[in-house]
Amino acid sequence: MLTLDKIYHASYVLKDVIRPTNIIKAPAISDDCEVYLKPENLQITGSFKVRGSGYKISQLTDEEKKHGVIACSAGNHAQGVALAATKYGIKSLICLPDGAPISKVEATKGYGAEVCMVPGVYDDAYNEALRLRDEHNYTFIHPFDDENVIAGQGTIGLEIMDELSDVDAVVAAIGGGGLISGVACAIKNLNPNIKVYGVQAEGAPSMYRSIKEGKPVCLNKVSTVADGIQVKEPGTLTYDLVKKYVDDIVTVNDDEISAAILKLIETQKMISEGAGAAPLAAVMFNKLPVKGKKVVCIVSGGNIDVTILSRVIKRGLLISGRQQTVCIELQDKPGQLLKVSEIIANKGGNVISIHHERASEGTDINGCYLRIVMETRNYDHVKEITDALTNAGLKLV
Amino acid sequence: MLTLDKIYHASYVLKDVIRPTNIIKAPAISDDCEVYLKPENLQITGSFKVRGSGYKISQLTDEEKKHGVIACSAGNHAQGVALAATKYGIKSLICLPDGAPISKVEATKGYGAEVCMVPGVYDDAYNEALRLRDEHNYTFIHPFDDENVIAGQGTIGLEIMDELSDVDAVVAAIGGGGLISGVACAIKNLNPNIKVYGVQAEGAPSMYRSIKEGKPVCLNKVSTVADGIQVKEPGTLTYDLVKKYVDDIVTVNDDEISAAILKLIETQKMISEGAGAAPLAAVMFNKLPVKGKKVVCIVSGGNIDVTILSRVIKRGLLISGRQQTVCIELQDKPGQLLKVSEIIANKGGNVISIHHERASEGTDINGCYLRIVMETRNYDHVKEITDALTNAGLKLV
Repeated sequence: MLTLDKIYHASYVLKDVIRPTNIIKAPAISDDCEVYLKPENLQITGSFKVRGSGYKISQLTDEEKKHGVIACSAGNHAQGVALAATKYGIKSLICLPDGAPISKVEATKGYGAEVCMVPGVYDDAYNEALRLRDEHNYTFIHPFDDENVIAGQGTIGLEIMDELSDVDAVVAAIGGGGLISGVACAIKNLNPNIKVYGVQAEGAPSMYRSIKEGKPVCLNKVSTVADGIQVKEPGTLTYDLVKKYVDDIVTVNDDEISAAILKLIETQKMISEGAGAAPLAAVMFNKLPVKGKKVVCIVSGGNIDVTILSRVIKRGLLISGRQQTVCIELQDKPGQLLKVSEIIANKGGNVISIHHERASEGTDINGCYLRIVMETRNYDHVKEITDALTNAGLKLV
Repeated sequence: MLTLDKIYHASYVLKDVIRPTNIIKAPAISDDCEVYLKPENLQITGSFKVRGSGYKISQLTDEEKKHGVIACSAGNHAQGVALAATKYGIKSLICLPDGAPISKVEATKGYGAEVCMVPGVYDDAYNEALRLRDEHNYTFIHPFDDENVIAGQGTIGLEIMDELSDVDAVVAAIGGGGLISGVACAIKNLNPNIKVYGVQAEGAPSMYRSIKEGKPVCLNKVSTVADGIQVKEPGTLTYDLVKKYVDDIVTVNDDEISAAILKLIETQKMISEGAGAAPLAAVMFNKLPVKGKKVVCIVSGGNIDVTILSRVIKRGLLISGRQQTVCIELQDKPGQLLKVSEIIANKGGNVISIHHERASEGTDINGCYLRIVMETRNYDHVKEITDALTNAGLKLV
């Protein structure tokens, strides 16, 4: 099983591959505990994954290096393998499902990998990767269920202990479990009193369910905005390590993750992907017993598609009560819009879009709907405005 | 006139007020030169402004401190003054025009200032601030035209020289000119061979025009996405310092700024406001003679309203050829949509929205329009797709 020695060795080997990512104090995140961020979104390739693939590739034999490596991923693992292989001067081939976002394909090529687009979904790309491995003697680089990969990710645990040895708890997201397995192994071996918590997406709780049920389970369907941790089944190595070292696992939903992404943007000026913001979401929404504690949240990556980012920002504003849509049924006569506008303005709401439409079937023929999107301070402010509208005899629908 | 001594003194005084913002190497920004970022967006309050107001406030007499300070700003200066005053245990009052975004008002209050909302625009708030100053003996903290404020901003220049003494050029945005005046004074006094370039928004070129015309000019109208540098008139101190120390000033437009903001998000996982991204825009769009050079771009702040951020992301995608809208005039008969879809799919474009509408007045009664928004790799890719559509006999409008 994985040992602290190996993680120290990985740390030594990776010095030439990775960027330092110093811990950042983030007092604006929570009033209840002392939050620090380990910003692996600022890591080269935009995620921690380069650590695991970097160490794995460094330990290949010369014969294996000569043949090159293969991986299957549409995301951070692809970029990590590509960069690490290029650093060690060996060939890498990445199989991607043909629906993968253009930005990720381009980034993977940019780090020097050859890309093979496979018709179908992830499983098809995975099978093609195994076929190509057998045909060409490539080494397959697993995204998480590999001791050297896990040791590489574990170097994050050593760095946290180095910089903030009096930390009380470390929180990491779990997809396949590679990151938390390595981190927990490092930390618990150095100081078993430090808590290590895992966070999964509510829509992909494979490790959470596996630990509860006492054996690795495979989910039929997974769906979450945190695509980096959207994994159907934990690894066998990672399952054992999580079971041994991790204190607890909690889940967060997409709205909570979106709010955490928005919080990082607004208070830290930092972009995180869904998986990267999940630990923060768990702290923000009080899923963990960390009141008054010194907590490091690992922001595991920042590779979020910008079109998704726009949607996440909008969702984050909604869930934090910072933007609200109200729909009002009005009599279609002059002065109605003025009345509504006055009430909202007096209460300090800021209208950012307005849509006025005649009623459709099923409503009063003289009625019309006014759909207003406004910026607000928080939920109390929203309630203040909707109460004022209702008290003025307006009908909110 | 401002001396290097004073900037060193500011640097000493500010140690307890500011956060360290280490220079970040950013190789993904440009292939033509070696780009480094000075990330003042990660500074406390999200911008460099706290340096100037911090030093200014530290140097007030006990009598002045007793009365407190006042400022007028809807942005970074407000937050800087609020935080610095709170650090020194004195009262601050910030006048804001009543249209100021809720997020900025809340942030200013959050740093401990009292906020006075003034009906009208910036000039009204400014006049009210002067009136209140006279009435209550507050000290007015000017956002840029004050020697101590400029000395505070100049500490950024010292830090750059400390960390990267072999830098060839430093690029900073110019609004009123406080930042670049201090930075240029520090750098040129240490090493006159290092170039210092200023960047203004095309829609607010007050310093640019003033230097060209040989005297400070006041613009009638300013408009730019970079609200932090949307200033009508340079200061008299800053005009003299820029004239003395700055090598050249260039302008960038809103599209270029948006592309730079997007670049920072995608390659550095970092949020910048418009002013903060302007220096990068100047480098990316080859406005400066820095080919092959080691260049530090000062990312002056990250306080961008998230709703504006969404719009900027969209604009950035458009200008970099990463998203394209095509409008096709079709005959309204079956199979047309299929034909278009096939061409786009074959060329690797990714359709993200589609709108199909019957033609309105002025067009063929049997015609209809198909408006397609698609993700693309770059301009060449866009051209490849539009050429293929045209070659297939389709009419692009």
